[in-house]
Parts: sequence; structure tokens; C-alpha cells
Amino acid sequence: MTTAPITGELLIGAGAKRGQAGGLQAWSPVRGQALPETFGGADAADVDAACTLARAAFDPFRQAAPEQRARLLEAIADGLLTLGDALLERAHLETALPLARLQGERGRTMNQLRLFAQLLRDGRWQGVVLDPALPERQPLPRPDLRLQKIGVGPVAVFGASNFPLAFSVAGGDTASALAAGCPVVAKAHPAHPGTSELVGRVIQQAVRDTGLPEGVFSLLHGDASGVALGQALVRHPAIQAVGFTGSRRGGLSLLATAQARPQPIPVYAEMSAINPVILLPGALAARADKLAQGFADSLTLGVGQFCTNPGLLLAIDGPELERFLAAAGAALAAKPQGHPMLTPGIQAAYETGSARLREQPGVRLASTGPSAQLAVADAATFLANPVLHDEVFGPSALLLRCRDADELVTLLEALEGQLTATLQLEQNTDADIARRLLPVLERKAGRILANGFPTGVEVSHAMVHGGPWPATTGPQHSSVGSSAIERFLRPVCYQDLPDWLLPPALQQANPLGLWRLVEGRVEAPLV
Amino acid sequence: MTTAPITGELLIGAGAKRGQAGGLQAWSPVRGQALPETFGGADAADVDAACTLARAAFDPFRQAAPEQRARLLEAIADGLLTLGDALLERAHLETALPLARLQGERGRTMNQLRLFAQLLRDGRWQGVVLDPALPERQPLPRPDLRLQKIGVGPVAVFGASNFPLAFSVAGGDTASALAAGCPVVAKAHPAHPGTSELVGRVIQQAVRDTGLPEGVFSLLHGDASGVALGQALVRHPAIQAVGFTGSRRGGLSLLATAQARPQPIPVYAEMSAINPVILLPGALAARADKLAQGFADSLTLGVGQFCTNPGLLLAIDGPELERFLAAAGAALAAKPQGHPMLTPGIQAAYETGSARLREQPGVRLASTGPSAQLAVADAATFLANPVLHDEVFGPSALLLRCRDADELVTLLEALEGQLTATLQLEQNTDADIARRLLPVLERKAGRILANGFPTGVEVSHAMVHGGPWPATTGPQHSSVGSSAIERFLRPVCYQDLPDWLLPPALQQANPLGLWRLVEGRVEAPLV
Repeated sequence: MTTAPITGELLIGAGAKRGQAGGLQAWSPVRGQALPETFGGADAADVDAACTLARAAFDPFRQAAPEQRARLLEAIADGLLTLGDALLERAHLETALPLARLQGERGRTMNQLRLFAQLLRDGRWQGVVLDPALPERQPLPRPDLRLQKIGVGPVAVFGASNFPLAFSVAGGDTASALAAGCPVVAKAHPAHPGTSELVGRVIQQAVRDTGLPEGVFSLLHGDASGVALGQALVRHPAIQAVGFTGSRRGGLSLLATAQARPQPIPVYAEMSAINPVILLPGALAARADKLAQGFADSLTLGVGQFCTNPGLLLAIDGPELERFLAAAGAALAAKPQGHPMLTPGIQAAYETGSARLREQPGVRLASTGPSAQLAVADAATFLANPVLHDEVFGPSALLLRCRDADELVTLLEALEGQLTATLQLEQNTDADIARRLLPVLERKAGRILANGFPTGVEVSHAMVHGGPWPATTGPQHSSVGSSAIERFLRPVCYQDLPDWLLPPALQQANPLGLWRLVEGRVEAPLV
Repeated sequence: MTTAPITGELLIGAGAKRGQAGGLQAWSPVRGQALPETFGGADAADVDAACTLARAAFDPFRQAAPEQRARLLEAIADGLLTLGDALLERAHLETALPLARLQGERGRTMNQLRLFAQLLRDGRWQGVVLDPALPERQPLPRPDLRLQKIGVGPVAVFGASNFPLAFSVAGGDTASALAAGCPVVAKAHPAHPGTSELVGRVIQQAVRDTGLPEGVFSLLHGDASGVALGQALVRHPAIQAVGFTGSRRGGLSLLATAQARPQPIPVYAEMSAINPVILLPGALAARADKLAQGFADSLTLGVGQFCTNPGLLLAIDGPELERFLAAAGAALAAKPQGHPMLTPGIQAAYETGSARLREQPGVRLASTGPSAQLAVADAATFLANPVLHDEVFGPSALLLRCRDADELVTLLEALEGQLTATLQLEQNTDADIARRLLPVLERKAGRILANGFPTGVEVSHAMVHGGPWPATTGPQHSSVGSSAIERFLRPVCYQDLPDWLLPPALQQANPLGLWRLVEGRVEAPLV
């Protein structure tokens, strides 16, 4: 296996060219120094070229047989594997994430691509609904009505720094957009530009190999901040939706731009969360030590650089809570120094944010060490101070002591929207309070866990990686799992179209063998 | 049957009180004069009271058995019928819409409520997905994951002037929000406040009769413009989504307010469309006269006061088009003067807008008369003048002459998003061009018709009343038909919850008898 060198070029459709608008140099947090490769930045003409190709590719791509799009996704998955260790090593060099973790992340990325390939073959994503004509109906006949979902148009994808494979150039946003029939213009994350290029070239090759139009995929680099390129992409009239995972500031800025367009477009931004974990009294009594160890493991996993990092604990005061705090302090203190954080900027923000947290009035440190911090405050302190509600990206958590269940409910009601909320509970002792809290958590979070920790997001059909504002800008959708495709689809109804003009998914003979909802009843395909 | 008098009160939960913040007097376009009833306007405390009750009702309402919500919808439908002619007569008095039309609209409103009751019993709206645990999976076990959809929270509903029943207080937005488990705070349309009160009291009574919390429904009046009340409603923190049908200016104003909230919320606004109808050459050759008559009927239906009114015709130049124009002119001239328009404001806007249209350079009138106007322009004139792209609400249409199919495509690509697009075609002669246009129309409209006219929107499962911006602010949704419920739902994932804590829809024994997607495969309920 030979690996193509990293050239630092923009990938615009089938072509590659050196960007001339500034650019950036790759950095290695592992080495604490710059890497040799430089990446030329895209100018306005490059953005326009990529987006115009994407617009031209949209109709043929969305009209291509679902099977052809499935093969594209599988070709990308295969291509990632073919890159072998070169991909993992580059990603490690650029992110400091351990090789074992990156190997797992590559597997997850490939599984994700294959899940969408499977979804395309299954066909339920097209949401076919038929209401046949009722020509004899009184007082008016009913026309023949048929509904299918189609892609929304070209999608701009902004990868995340903390998942250089699974949430980046060939990550969930790209996979679900391509599955929906939407061409993708991806912005390479400045923290892993070389990884982005390696993956981008795999996608470019897969588009070529499956005979699809070149505009189906482009990859652009910006400068070190990426702001100007991101804004230009979101402003381009060909772009019809945006997938973003990152900071609240970044997400809100893209959202404002998208809303100010002559034609506003949706931004699916997954931004920030502190992922409350509620330690109910029975759970604390039964297993304070085990909970403390589980929490310490979850908080420090990947240097705390997960969207679902457990940044907030809530518990009712009492001796069992003291036991938990002591055990958590010990477990955290025993953790070795983690690997470096993803970027110097993230490291600096963590240092500032974690210091700001522990310096707030009424906050004391229960544990600090080389690897993490756990701070403690009471409910009134939390309610009075918005700083304590902010995410500190990294291995920092805040535990809130509550007087009783009522105060616990008050605190939960005061939280912003979250990606996850977790209940640690025992049936014998905690059933009543758990039943009382569940409806509150349903309103606050996209995913509710019992007796686990929120880090670790399964890629499956039932997953929801999303949640009420400001966890995301689109609480009605998930950015992980097969339902992520829905972000990039819209319904179209066809009234009285002759069969020869109908798209294949809606033709009477059902040539694609799709599940259909007919007169409101589910109808299996004839096989 | 006795009909309660119209009191002009606000309906806040189970109560009724006279609003003290200004208010409005009902007007009758039939009589051309004010009606005796006055309606007191809601102040900030009234808005807060209604929204706070709605918030309190949300958890019990969404957790109520779907059957109970279905009975609520049916009780509302029954109550509308029980009002008998009093409802139709009041609606006629306030809107000038003919009684026969209002009778049909009442039937449609009741069918709509019953469709959502049926949907609730069917249960597919809950979107249950199960991915069972895989404890033995390597390298990591999979947790048990279960997804259901729940309501988003209290919804503010803004009725439309042109459908005082089907798109107003008990219209599609209210029916779909209640079905989703979302309490509704409705703003009465100032053009039919008495009709609104009659319907509102029916809903209030139905909530009481089905034993649901009073906050499930409130009805507020504002002043004659309604702007201040609308803004206050959308700003209230308890409100989680907005349903609106009306002008572009009104929709954009509510959208801006919703986006500026500390927690932005979605606004589903259906705003404006000119609904292009494309007369392909074969269709013109085969049936120019019939097309002209069908067009004239559709344009003048209900004095042109439909969102789906055919405001734009496109055709390739030629003698058959001249025949169509002559026939359309004659058909329109033969139409009697329509009934008065809905409000003096709509009448004035129509007079201004239709005059502005015909006075634009390059526009000439093909027909004008007491009932409607048909103007004609060429493609270049249209492309150069944004005024010609605007909706004129009422019986005014513009026909664009194209040189050839290429110019037709250019024109269609230049259109804004539309609710509908219509092809008049003959298979023998128009198949190629129709196949070429279809992908363009799919990108431009929510519903595509062949050989019909766009007025008349079926309430069914396959209907899409929606479309790309600026036809609506939410192109991924429909405001008519059973899929309208999706606007008011969001997914929640439950990870490893014990069965005793799971909501009924997700419990292993499937007590609600729901269709479920298990491991990506559709599973019918055991009956």
C-alpha cells in the first residue's frame, strides 16, 4: 500500500489546486511544534467553484439510483481502510489522540458510512406515502397524491476538532448528506488539515470510481481561524443546509449568517452541553465508590474532550455524598496526566475556563490534580451565577449539593438544553424520585441514560445526539445515527402525475421495492 | 341547540375574562360596517397567564394516553358541528365567504381533527425505534437504546384570515399541535374574532369534558393589528414553537422575534407564493379553451384569496398561446363580480398590488374586468423586475411568454420557492420537456401537479402544503395533512432505562400496541 503525499491543495470537484488566499500550517500537539505541511487557503473564486459544481451535481446525484449512492458510501469506507496506518498516524500527529482510540474511531466512521448505505438500500428514508385517487368521492373527487422525500441541496460540512474521523470530512454529517443525495462542500478543520486531505482524497476517488458527478464533493482549507471561509461557504447561494459540530460561538456565528441570507437556510449545529448526571440517594448508598470510579473514568476519557463529557453532577446532601466525593477525589488524583489536548487554543481555553470556575464565589475544589478537576457548590450558588452553567471543554466538572428533591427539580428546570442527562438510581429506593425527574429530563435533553455515563455515543437507529437549545440549533434532529439523514431531506407531493413522469420511488409498480404508507396503512414491498 | 352569546372575552385556560388592553371591534365585509361586538385585548399579564398555564399543562398533557388526546380532537370536531348554522353565519358575516364554502370548510376542519385522532390511535407518529442491548459485542457492548418522539412544548397558533375555520383557532396548526401533546395558545385573527370565540369556547369545553388540564388551550385577542400581542406571545419563554399562516411581512416579523429570543424557537410560517402553472405546447394545442376556463375558475375561486392561487402562468410563444389568451380573457370577463374580499385591508392591498403589477414597464393587460386581471409580459421583463415576482393576494395573474424551452427553464430557475407548481401536459408531445422540468420544479415547490389547478388542498397523509423559502420558513415540513404533526415533535433517546421507568410507548411489552423499528426492521404490533 502506498500513501499519496499530503500536498496542502484544495480539492474542488475532481481537481486539486493550491489555494492562494493565505492558508495555514499544520501543528502537532504531540510534538508541540509545527509540522512541515502548509495548506493554501480558498479564495472567493474557489468557494464559488466548489459550490457551483455542487449545485450542478445536485440533480443528477439525487436522481442517481440509491444503490449507486450506497456504493459511494461503501467505497469511502473501504478507502479509509486502504489508507491503513498512515491515516491513523497522521491523525495522531495532528490531534494527540491515542492510536487505539483513532483505530476505534476509524471503525466507527466506516460503520457509519455502511449504516447509511444500508439505509439507502432499505429505502424507508424516502418516506413514500400514497393516497390513491378517489374519483367517485362526494362532494369532490380526491386526486392521486404521492409523497417522497428528496435532498435539500448542497450541504456545507464543518468538522469537529475532537473527532478527526467520525465527525470530520467523512463523518456523520457528510455520510448523512451524501446518503440524502446532497453534494457536500467540506471545510477542513484547521487542527487536522492533513488528516482532512487524506480523507478528502479518498472521497474524491470514490466519487470518481462510482461514476458520480465530480461536484458531489469538495474540500476547502481556510486560514488558521477558518472564520472567513466558513462565513463565505454559508453565504453562498448554492448551499442549502449546514452541518456543524464545535463551539457555541462558532455555531451561533454561522447560524446568524445563515439566517441573514436572502434565502435563510437551516444550520444543524451541535454546540455545547454540560450533561448533568444525577446521583440519586439509593444509588449513592448502594455504590458510591463504584460511581466515583465510573465518573472519574468518564470525565477524563480523551482528556475530557467529548461533547457528552459529564460536566455537572447533582446529588442530595448527606453522608453518602461525602463518601462519593472522597472516592471521586481519590479516583481523579490517581489518574495519570492525560495526553496533550487537541490544540493550544483548546488547552488555553481549558486552563482559563477551569480556573474561572474554581474561582467563583461559593465554589470549592473537591479534587484537583494533573488530570482533572472536580468543584463543588450549592444550589443557590449555581442558580445565582450564570458562569457556573457554562461548559468548560475538558476534564472539569461541578457537583451541586441539593437540600432535597424539590431543590433538585428546581436546579434541573434551571438548566439549559443538554445533549444528555443521566440518572444513577436503584429501583428499591429511587423509583419515586426517578419517575418525578424523568419528564423534566425529557424536556431538557436529547438522550437520557440510567446507570451509565454519557460519553460514548452509539451509531444506530435509536440514537439521538441532539437536544434542546443551546445543545443544538435543531432540537428536532439527531446528528448521529440513521435519523441524521432527516436533516437533509424535504418532502415533495406529486398530484395526479402520470406514471411515466413519476420518480421511480413513486411509480405504481414500485420498481425500487420500497415500504409504502398507503391510505395511512403500512404496506410491505412485494418481494 | 342554543348558541352561547359572543362576549368578546379572552379564554385563559378554563376561565374567561374581559381583556383591558385596548381591543377591537368586529367588522363585516358583507355589510361594509362594524358589528356590535367588541373584543378586549390581552395585556402582558394575560399573555403570561395563558402561557404559564400552557407550560404547567405540558407534561400531563403529553403524558396523557394518546386515546385521551384523540377523544379531545373528536370532541372539538363534534362541538363545531353542534354549533350548527350559528358558526357558519357568524363566519360568513365576518369574512364574506359564502355559506356553502364555509360548510365545506367546516367539514374539512372536522375531518382534519379526526385525521389526527386516527393518527394518535395508529401510533406511528411516536416513531418508536428500538436497538436492543448487545452485551457480548466486541470491542464494546451496545447499550439498550430506545427512541420515541415527544411534543416540543406549548405552541402559539396564528390563524389565517382566509380560512376562518380550517386554518384558524381549531385549524390544522391547533389540531396537529394538540395531537403532538403540545398545549396551544391561539391568537384570534382580528378579521374574525367572533368566529374565533365560538370555536375557542368549543375547544375550552372539549378540554374540560375530556378531563385534561385547563392550560391545554387558551385564546387571546389583541388590537386591530394584532402585532403587539403576536410579538408578546412569540417572546414568552414558555412558547416552544409557532404556527402561522399569513403575509410574508407578518411571518418574517414573528420569525425575527423568535430568532432573537435567548432560546430561539422554530416558526412554521406559510407566507406567500405565486404558484406557477406551466402550459406546455402539446397541452395548449390539445385544449387551450378548456385550460383557459379551468384557469379562470381557479384564479377567481374565493375571490382569489387562496395561498395556492395560480398567480403565474408560463408558456412558449405561438398561435396556441394566443388562443389560450383570448379564451382566458373571455372566461374571466364572463365571471361575475366576486363577493367582497375578506377585509378592507386585503381589498386595498389587492387594488394597490394589482395596479402596480399592470403599470410595470413591459406589462400589458390581456384581460381585466370586475372579477380578475390577467397581465402578460415576456421573460426578459420578468427577470429584470423583482416587482413581478411578488404575490398579489387576490384574483390577479401574470402570464410569461417564453421563446423556447431553455427560456422556460431559465424563468423557473429564477423563481423563489413556491407552495405548488403545475404542469399542463400531453404525453405524446410534452414528455421530453416535462421530464426536463420536473427536477427544477422539485427544487422549487412543495407540491407538483399535472393537468390540474393548485387551488384545493387535500387533507391526507401524502399532502405537502409547504415548500422552499419564502413560501414557508420550514421547507422540511407540511402545514396540512398528517405529517404536519412532525413540526411539533422532537426525538428523545432512552439508554438502558429499566422497564419500570420507561414511558409506555417504549416498554418491552408494547402496551400501546405500536409499530416499532427494531434493529432497523419494521415490526408490526402483535394484535
